Amino acid sequence: MFRKLLTFDEALKTIRQQFKPKPLGIEEVALLDSHNRVLAGNVKAMIDVPPFDRSTMDGYAVRARDTFGAEENRPMSLKVCGAVGIGEPTKITIRRGEAAEIVTGAPMPEGADAVVMVEHAQRSDSNVLVFDAVATDENIMKAGADIRKGETVLKTGQLLGSREIGVLAALGTTKVTVYLVPRVAVLSTGPEVTEPGRKLSFGKIYDTNAYSLSTGVLESGGRPIYLGVFPDDLSQLQKAVREGLTKADLVVTSGGVSVGPRDVMPKVLGSLGEPGVVICGVAMKPGKPTTVASVGGTPVFALPGHPTSALLAFRLFVRPVIELMAGRKREAGSEVKAFAGMRMFPAKGRRTFVMVKLNRDRSDRLVATPVPSGASGAITTLEKADGFVEIAENVQFVDVNEQVVVHVFKVSDEG
Amino acid sequence: MFRKLLTFDEALKTIRQQFKPKPLGIEEVALLDSHNRVLAGNVKAMIDVPPFDRSTMDGYAVRARDTFGAEENRPMSLKVCGAVGIGEPTKITIRRGEAAEIVTGAPMPEGADAVVMVEHAQRSDSNVLVFDAVATDENIMKAGADIRKGETVLKTGQLLGSREIGVLAALGTTKVTVYLVPRVAVLSTGPEVTEPGRKLSFGKIYDTNAYSLSTGVLESGGRPIYLGVFPDDLSQLQKAVREGLTKADLVVTSGGVSVGPRDVMPKVLGSLGEPGVVICGVAMKPGKPTTVASVGGTPVFALPGHPTSALLAFRLFVRPVIELMAGRKREAGSEVKAFAGMRMFPAKGRRTFVMVKLNRDRSDRLVATPVPSGASGAITTLEKADGFVEIAENVQFVDVNEQVVVHVFKVSDEG
Repeated sequence: MFRKLLTFDEALKTIRQQFKPKPLGIEEVALLDSHNRVLAGNVKAMIDVPPFDRSTMDGYAVRARDTFGAEENRPMSLKVCGAVGIGEPTKITIRRGEAAEIVTGAPMPEGADAVVMVEHAQRSDSNVLVFDAVATDENIMKAGADIRKGETVLKTGQLLGSREIGVLAALGTTKVTVYLVPRVAVLSTGPEVTEPGRKLSFGKIYDTNAYSLSTGVLESGGRPIYLGVFPDDLSQLQKAVREGLTKADLVVTSGGVSVGPRDVMPKVLGSLGEPGVVICGVAMKPGKPTTVASVGGTPVFALPGHPTSALLAFRLFVRPVIELMAGRKREAGSEVKAFAGMRMFPAKGRRTFVMVKLNRDRSDRLVATPVPSGASGAITTLEKADGFVEIAENVQFVDVNEQVVVHVFKVSDEG
Repeated sequence: MFRKLLTFDEALKTIRQQFKPKPLGIEEVALLDSHNRVLAGNVKAMIDVPPFDRSTMDGYAVRARDTFGAEENRPMSLKVCGAVGIGEPTKITIRRGEAAEIVTGAPMPEGADAVVMVEHAQRSDSNVLVFDAVATDENIMKAGADIRKGETVLKTGQLLGSREIGVLAALGTTKVTVYLVPRVAVLSTGPEVTEPGRKLSFGKIYDTNAYSLSTGVLESGGRPIYLGVFPDDLSQLQKAVREGLTKADLVVTSGGVSVGPRDVMPKVLGSLGEPGVVICGVAMKPGKPTTVASVGGTPVFALPGHPTSALLAFRLFVRPVIELMAGRKREAGSEVKAFAGMRMFPAKGRRTFVMVKLNRDRSDRLVATPVPSGASGAITTLEKADGFVEIAENVQFVDVNEQVVVHVFKVSDEG
């Protein structure tokens, strides 16, 4: 097994080329269950919306030309030949000199081509006085004005939120074809790692990674399958990862990947099948020991055990793969520009990611200040950070007040 | 029943005062099921994280003072008295002139107060040569350095994402106390409204509101209960809303609220119990017919039937109530500043909300351009909009290039 660090860009390219991540398949779900799912095909309107010319006002359906010349002190008189209700077919036909009562949303009767607002009309028995002329199509929403039959209204890869689901309902849709949700097996290893809920003996720490990675999977559009914590024993880990490979479309582990004879994950990844290990360390900080294998095309990501490193490597390498498998388009706009709150030094020759907190200074400028990491094992670093700044390999330092791009972690909520 | 329009601000105030929305109760869920739930209490750390002083490097645990004066060409020799493994208790005590092998993450042995990196040491049989002095606490992460026992790590109202769940796991948490998810009953009415999936007869349109409002409920932190489409018949609607009142913590309807004898929802809302209708129209555009009742303290929101009006009124009036019932803190930061792409005219005397699309112009300025609404019934207006601009009642118009605040609809994703 080789131990040659790839550059960060080489690592991204290797992942793209090895796995060519793409949607795993499609399924049909009920419209009400389609929230947060991804459309697996363009949606064409099979009907016009609205399906008929409808009045947008309460008033009188008329032939526009019959109102020409009507004014406040010179009203036109039309004969009321009936009333058009909402939601019901009408047999009424408007002839010259005639009008029909109509309400908002009701279909226009045959012959009429405009609506006089009730405020501009005065009823007297079987006639109505019209005090204002209307133009053709005035106060009418034409059939197909909102959505035209045949029009592509939603496209493949669209994440379905409340507005998209509303449009699908308007077209009469009850079932939607969406991409399958990728299944992602998650496990942790490390001789010091204990499952939460158990007693913590001396020298041990509780597992955080399986939990934060599982929720990271959810947030990427995948479904996590939690396998548990395993001792760093070759055969137990082989068995666990094999279980992951049968149950899931992708396996993510954390721990056991640092350089050293005791670090078992590279051996595990090298033993599961062809082509095996494709990345064995990346020139980046944090996340250097990240190891990636392909087992018959299924990706296995062995991330570092340090919580910050694990979550960052997940975000940079694993999340894009899950998103592509889920059929999601990569979201733009989770980046903001800010000024460096202090000088930031990258690790020499490594792509460096600095966790930062965003604040506004007195002149309302957005300032990015590195979160003190305490030590590389700190769990709270990421929790305190609003995002990270990426520093290229050849940069000596980022000076205070220099403009930086912050990749924001949490752009919460939608609606 | 009165028909006096409230101002927009009065309407907000009435809702706050009538319902005093607050969390509905608490429950305990498994940590892995707590994603997107809201913490119902502050979380204090019951342990230190890490729980012991741990090495942050591979190397040798030493007494720092034994290395003072060590240099590249004047190494200090220490006696290696053992090795400290990761994840296991150690009986080793480091005395003067002694060192112990140690790996990253392993607990510091008794007596040692620093770690010499393996790169600065050279082993020879039972001794190790140290080529660089270390200071006290160097390469050690002290117990509690990440999280101190007794410290409040997460606060009531915190939405649980991957990072928060990671912190909870680090503390050994398996169950989390979260607020109950508010149940929201959703129904539609209107003589022209047909449930998707049924055949559309002439003059009818498909229901969109129940679907988009249901997903809006999800996105606000509630659980929608879909009741269906009902004809605008007093007794059927009374029965439906009563069903909603028994099944849910809040009822949202759309349709049947315009002024007019045929609009039945105000009558329904006035007939269900005390105190009854508290808002009967709001001086706003769109959303004017919005009607709100309190039935023994349970809110019933009757929103307009027009899709854009319904979703906007939902967002402005209903969503904040659901969020408070869910225990969520209101999210800040879903607003951006932009320049008006064209002149915007508010409706006279009404708080006006203009749907806009955001684009960057040639000089990279963010520009907000109104989405042509076609007509008030347009379903695609909201789908095309990125957000809305709020214009106060006393403003004549917003001029082109004037700065406006855009309330952004979709801030997608988290992670």
